[in-house]
Amino acid sequence: MKFKKVLIANRGEIAIRIARTCKELGISTVAVHSSADENSLHVKLADESVCIGPAKPTLSYLNIPSILSAAEITGADAIHPGFGFLSENKEFAQMCAKWGVEFIGPNVECIEKMGDKIISKEIAEAAGVPILKPIAVNGREDKDILADVEEMGLPVLVKASAGGGGRGMKKIEDISDLLVTITRLKTEAKAGFGDDTLFIEKFVTNPRHVEVQIMADRHGNVLHLGERDCTVQRRFQKVVEESPCPVLSEEKRAEICESAVALAKHVNYDSVGTVEYLYDQDEDKFYFMEMNTRIQVEHPVTEQRTGVDLIAQQILSASGEKLPMKQEEIKFVGHSIECRLNAEDPETFAPSPGHILHYHRPAGIGVRVDDFIYSGYTVSPFYDSMLAKIIVSGVNRDECLRRMERALEETVIEGIKTNKTLHLMIIRDEDFRGNNYATDFLVKKLK
Amino acid sequence: MKFKKVLIANRGEIAIRIARTCKELGISTVAVHSSADENSLHVKLADESVCIGPAKPTLSYLNIPSILSAAEITGADAIHPGFGFLSENKEFAQMCAKWGVEFIGPNVECIEKMGDKIISKEIAEAAGVPILKPIAVNGREDKDILADVEEMGLPVLVKASAGGGGRGMKKIEDISDLLVTITRLKTEAKAGFGDDTLFIEKFVTNPRHVEVQIMADRHGNVLHLGERDCTVQRRFQKVVEESPCPVLSEEKRAEICESAVALAKHVNYDSVGTVEYLYDQDEDKFYFMEMNTRIQVEHPVTEQRTGVDLIAQQILSASGEKLPMKQEEIKFVGHSIECRLNAEDPETFAPSPGHILHYHRPAGIGVRVDDFIYSGYTVSPFYDSMLAKIIVSGVNRDECLRRMERALEETVIEGIKTNKTLHLMIIRDEDFRGNNYATDFLVKKLK
Repeated sequence: MKFKKVLIANRGEIAIRIARTCKELGISTVAVHSSADENSLHVKLADESVCIGPAKPTLSYLNIPSILSAAEITGADAIHPGFGFLSENKEFAQMCAKWGVEFIGPNVECIEKMGDKIISKEIAEAAGVPILKPIAVNGREDKDILADVEEMGLPVLVKASAGGGGRGMKKIEDISDLLVTITRLKTEAKAGFGDDTLFIEKFVTNPRHVEVQIMADRHGNVLHLGERDCTVQRRFQKVVEESPCPVLSEEKRAEICESAVALAKHVNYDSVGTVEYLYDQDEDKFYFMEMNTRIQVEHPVTEQRTGVDLIAQQILSASGEKLPMKQEEIKFVGHSIECRLNAEDPETFAPSPGHILHYHRPAGIGVRVDDFIYSGYTVSPFYDSMLAKIIVSGVNRDECLRRMERALEETVIEGIKTNKTLHLMIIRDEDFRGNNYATDFLVKKLK
Repeated sequence: MKFKKVLIANRGEIAIRIARTCKELGISTVAVHSSADENSLHVKLADESVCIGPAKPTLSYLNIPSILSAAEITGADAIHPGFGFLSENKEFAQMCAKWGVEFIGPNVECIEKMGDKIISKEIAEAAGVPILKPIAVNGREDKDILADVEEMGLPVLVKASAGGGGRGMKKIEDISDLLVTITRLKTEAKAGFGDDTLFIEKFVTNPRHVEVQIMADRHGNVLHLGERDCTVQRRFQKVVEESPCPVLSEEKRAEICESAVALAKHVNYDSVGTVEYLYDQDEDKFYFMEMNTRIQVEHPVTEQRTGVDLIAQQILSASGEKLPMKQEEIKFVGHSIECRLNAEDPETFAPSPGHILHYHRPAGIGVRVDDFIYSGYTVSPFYDSMLAKIIVSGVNRDECLRRMERALEETVIEGIKTNKTLHLMIIRDEDFRGNNYATDFLVKKLK
């Protein structure tokens, strides 16, 4: 192992997740933290820690000079960005290279290209991966746009290029709404993202969110670790994830996984990453959505089924080592489901930070917990509301559902509100259990 | 599922272990507890609870009438005895049958026969399982004994039939010591156990403790779930267990597993159970020691590798269901190691009950914890000192060793003494890591 010391440029459960693997690899760790996170577990579990600024993320976890200084002071060889914050920031990756500290992630070109919604789709198309071909909007005549939409067929989605996470998009079911919506979205996009570029896409009526985990090295080797189904979302935030996707045929599964590998090879991808697809259940077709050039929140369900430590492979790839296995050596065992436990009001979904009086973590057979909270910890209002990921494994989906219900019932978090009841509702829901749902599952169930 | 309600006639982590699986199977649970265990987690995690007597085990957890009354009052269909206490008590199993409540374990005849050290060996021999064939001593001529020992080959062990746990036995390396030792041991045995019956057994110089997990139903189906290595022991108490046994060849592994299945079939075994062997590393031979007709402490390492919930299968078999799989459908994945965390002084090994000020349970990738303690819990002096089982899984033994070291380092138990440092010593030990050890490992390391 080339790296002796890794700086973890993140907080919460993912910082602990990374520290654990570093410890297992014999790498010492540097935690960075804002002044609000002084008592965080990720600080206690690391070998060293550096305060990088005040609570506000732009002044600490997004503060590139401060993080690079911390790496220099502590003599870190490499920086793991986790997810969120600077994990897909190409400037940060470039700055790391300049400062002689390895960025644990893919090459800068991949971050740049795949981070662009339009360019990444063009690349996917060039790699032979099915896409929802967009209709350009800006600088075109209204009648041409209308004609293209008529040809594509309604419903369609008008989207701001710079948007994301559900912001800057609108579904059109009636052609007469199209032009007004375009005018309004342009104004909104300009104001919200500083960029009024729009495009139009086919709206898939009954979609599942299916994504493929990719693992690659700097020697041209790429393989996949199967797919995850993350269809249960609320405002484009994933809530429950599982592997395998229970509605894919073996044939379609092979096809979608191979297409992700083809795309990763096409862009010379050289780290762990995820190719996200929209899967049309009615038509049995999938379409490339985007690629995440980082580790994802839901990566544990893949680890549970394959036995592969994805953070370890990410670090090994960044250090220049070759993948230690071939595609055919990856064995998929059983089923796995993850629930994201958030500090939020179960009715209004408003964040619910505050003091945790008592926390009892579930345990026992088939239960993995990745968390960072403890009895007496105060959840900060400055950051993401995720408290813990409860991950269960079992021989099949049915065993996982029963196990997750048991694990959730065992979980006690007193003092703040959490979405535990939402998860119990989902896990017990007949449509969820029967796989009779799409990405609008929570919208339908919560109204 | 025939059973609607199961009474768990145990305490501590195994009571919780059983309650979890019952919950997953949709069976409601009754906890029983002594007055000392009122605040125990196994009581809180069960649906109902009944106090069955004062702290002293003979008055509560071994109190058969009290437990059967609790089953009658609560309307339990079946009783799970866990391990220890009444788990291998044939009178209890008979009483359960008489009271019309199912005993979750094998048939009474198996408990009786396999619970007898001498009869079980005879049965093993009849089933074609290798045993250490004893040479009779009492009532025989010296020259005949000498001739038999010459034929067996030195070293041998002279053992008192009524002895056990290391008492009443002597190793002979020089044939000229044999007759004097017999005379002396006879006197000692008569004085110590009231019985001067001796026998002579081959002394295995470099043995490992290897055991095979058996799973059977009431329809004559028997299969094995591979072996466990439990060589690291202190005074015949297992300390660290793992699966697979790292020193067995594939051929020998198949042979030992098949012999356990043959024995189980021979005695019409119909539940989960374990056949224990002494494995001679130098000669590559194994010898039957005994059979445990119950679930064992170390069962999780097998669950981790096979994905089979052994408690669930035990309950299903007792309810009359057939095993849901065939031998060839059992897949063994990766490696697993368990450390038993006890409340004991790491130097004197004296029990260390008392108030736990703070407990931080390890978590994350590849870590399972089966425990029953919490911050603020008071460990009772009346019962076994085991607090928690830390179980790690990984692709191979090396990953498990690194993971266990990380998990142990993460574990915090404040307020009482524990054997955590002993486990760290074992896990980091070069001989343990290099598989250069036998059952005397801890004796050698601790002197």
